[in-house]
Amino acid sequence: MGKVVTSEVLRFMTDCFKSVGANAKAAEQQAELLLRADRMGHPSHGLNRLELYINDIIKGACQPNNQPKVLKQSASTAWVDANNVLGATASHFGMDLAIKKARDTGVGWVTVKGSNHNGMAGFWAQKASDQGFIGMAFTNTSPLMAPTRSKKQALGTNPLSVVAPASQGESFYLDMATTAVAVGKIEMQLRKGEPLPHGWAQGPDGKETTDARLAFDTCCLMPLGGGEKTSGYKGFGLAAMVELFCGISSGSNYGHHVRSWSHSGAGGPANLGHCFVAIDPENFAPGFKDRLTESIQHWRQLEPTDPKLPVQAPGDKEKALARQSDARGTVSYVKQQIESSAALAKRLQVKPMDVVLDD
Amino acid sequence: MGKVVTSEVLRFMTDCFKSVGANAKAAEQQAELLLRADRMGHPSHGLNRLELYINDIIKGACQPNNQPKVLKQSASTAWVDANNVLGATASHFGMDLAIKKARDTGVGWVTVKGSNHNGMAGFWAQKASDQGFIGMAFTNTSPLMAPTRSKKQALGTNPLSVVAPASQGESFYLDMATTAVAVGKIEMQLRKGEPLPHGWAQGPDGKETTDARLAFDTCCLMPLGGGEKTSGYKGFGLAAMVELFCGISSGSNYGHHVRSWSHSGAGGPANLGHCFVAIDPENFAPGFKDRLTESIQHWRQLEPTDPKLPVQAPGDKEKALARQSDARGTVSYVKQQIESSAALAKRLQVKPMDVVLDD
Repeated sequence: MGKVVTSEVLRFMTDCFKSVGANAKAAEQQAELLLRADRMGHPSHGLNRLELYINDIIKGACQPNNQPKVLKQSASTAWVDANNVLGATASHFGMDLAIKKARDTGVGWVTVKGSNHNGMAGFWAQKASDQGFIGMAFTNTSPLMAPTRSKKQALGTNPLSVVAPASQGESFYLDMATTAVAVGKIEMQLRKGEPLPHGWAQGPDGKETTDARLAFDTCCLMPLGGGEKTSGYKGFGLAAMVELFCGISSGSNYGHHVRSWSHSGAGGPANLGHCFVAIDPENFAPGFKDRLTESIQHWRQLEPTDPKLPVQAPGDKEKALARQSDARGTVSYVKQQIESSAALAKRLQVKPMDVVLDD
Repeated sequence: MGKVVTSEVLRFMTDCFKSVGANAKAAEQQAELLLRADRMGHPSHGLNRLELYINDIIKGACQPNNQPKVLKQSASTAWVDANNVLGATASHFGMDLAIKKARDTGVGWVTVKGSNHNGMAGFWAQKASDQGFIGMAFTNTSPLMAPTRSKKQALGTNPLSVVAPASQGESFYLDMATTAVAVGKIEMQLRKGEPLPHGWAQGPDGKETTDARLAFDTCCLMPLGGGEKTSGYKGFGLAAMVELFCGISSGSNYGHHVRSWSHSGAGGPANLGHCFVAIDPENFAPGFKDRLTESIQHWRQLEPTDPKLPVQAPGDKEKALARQSDARGTVSYVKQQIESSAALAKRLQVKPMDVVLDD
């Protein structure tokens, strides 16, 4: 493990994006998106992904200095072509539009095609919530999940996020893949040498497996809910719903047409689809924020089954990790991540991250 | 088992509602809602619930001849007080408004307070889809689900539904409780004398139980995803999201404030909250319906893990059951249901259902 001062992580990632030609704003916005994931304890969506985006730019699969364009709009909707910019540029554009429309009509619903990975979905829903709206964000991703009864993958981890402002400094924060878990969790079990719980992953025969190595190599995730008996078809339905809002609505690549995960930027533009929604809660009953806070605090105060494991409201874990990271002023990375970042710095001729070793 | 001609079920339920004072339109709409659930293979939401609604009307907890009222509206949103009418009356009113606004601005988002159970969520999303929109429907319900780590219930089964029109006679149909299963499924295991799968229900000690009798008596459901290791907190988050859209937005009863299930109409008005959304897919990329159909047909054609169990698209099961029921022209009910309907007919002095015995 190594620790890096938060501002230094931002500096490093921004420099990397600039070094391959991204303009300052695009570079900073993408770096900020990745940093937030690291601060909130989702390292799979942070610095870990930097090289993937860099490679996409180098190969021309991503063109960070293009401008997203509105193709069609109505009072409350917009259809956007991201023109292959970085996911952060596309998503700021999309959510800004949704917020503007929500200000005018109460709701904004924006779909985006021609985009790239846009990181942690919660970042985008949070953006709307920071301005007083209920924010929702959806994105499609590369096929990794097998629909219930299917031997093979057909949909991505297709995350959805809903964030809403509450009183007393609280907020509702839900950011979840519609698979039972992300691939990173399988990797962690593999490293620990532990079997997987039921309902996480399938082997090459299409049957559930608890063998972490087999699951990692097969990379075929089960939907939220696991197998059919435990209602995994609901998780499949949710992933399909996300695709309906993203690729099927926006005309981007969708479902099985989305390119496979590629670390090397091969396979051409990702042409991913996103969906951004903003809703003004003030348009409904007065007292929204107070009822939300009362609910959140009620959940936390429920008697836990195990006294050592208090009930957490959605997002409590992520917020606590961000608070800890911010109090320390540093972000922690595993050794492998520190090393690959150093190698990337060398390759791009960027000043390497200044790493503070663990105490 | 007994079979009843479909139109006779509708006649009987309509007569029951009229016998306790509901006007013809309210009675027919509520009967049609319940019948659809029976036809689609969700008997828990059909004739099975008739007596509950009747008792609510008799006790004055539901006032079927009131008029819902718009309390506040903007171009794309409306806040409605259902004034304690039947769930079907409230929901037709809410979804009609959402569709009207979607026609004008691209999106309609309507929250409703002061309502009663509004049956199968899919009925309402389907209503929007039938008119060419992506429809969404949400409702809160009585507390039955324990948030992850909690010993006790704090949220309902809080269903969500998304229905969208596709080409070639296809449609996307997702209608799901955000719990792993509904109570009815536990009852079925109990009748069969079989243990529960993992991740369905908790016992009185707050721990997962596979004992069907204990689970049925405790009536404490686990969220979609089951326990914490299998990401049950995502199902909890989804149930909380539904409550955010319904009770927390509309100012109805919400979460732990919703009255318990009551078969006798005790406990006063339910004051439930709903949310109805309509989105015009024509506002985004042309070809929405074709991409959706291509996806649905792709899912169905995926190689199944077990050749005897073909992959089903969301809603395939419900649609097939409705087709079978409609081809027969009858609806099937278990003996107990037939008997309790006969008793209800006697109590209300309504002509009993004409039952065709099973062959």
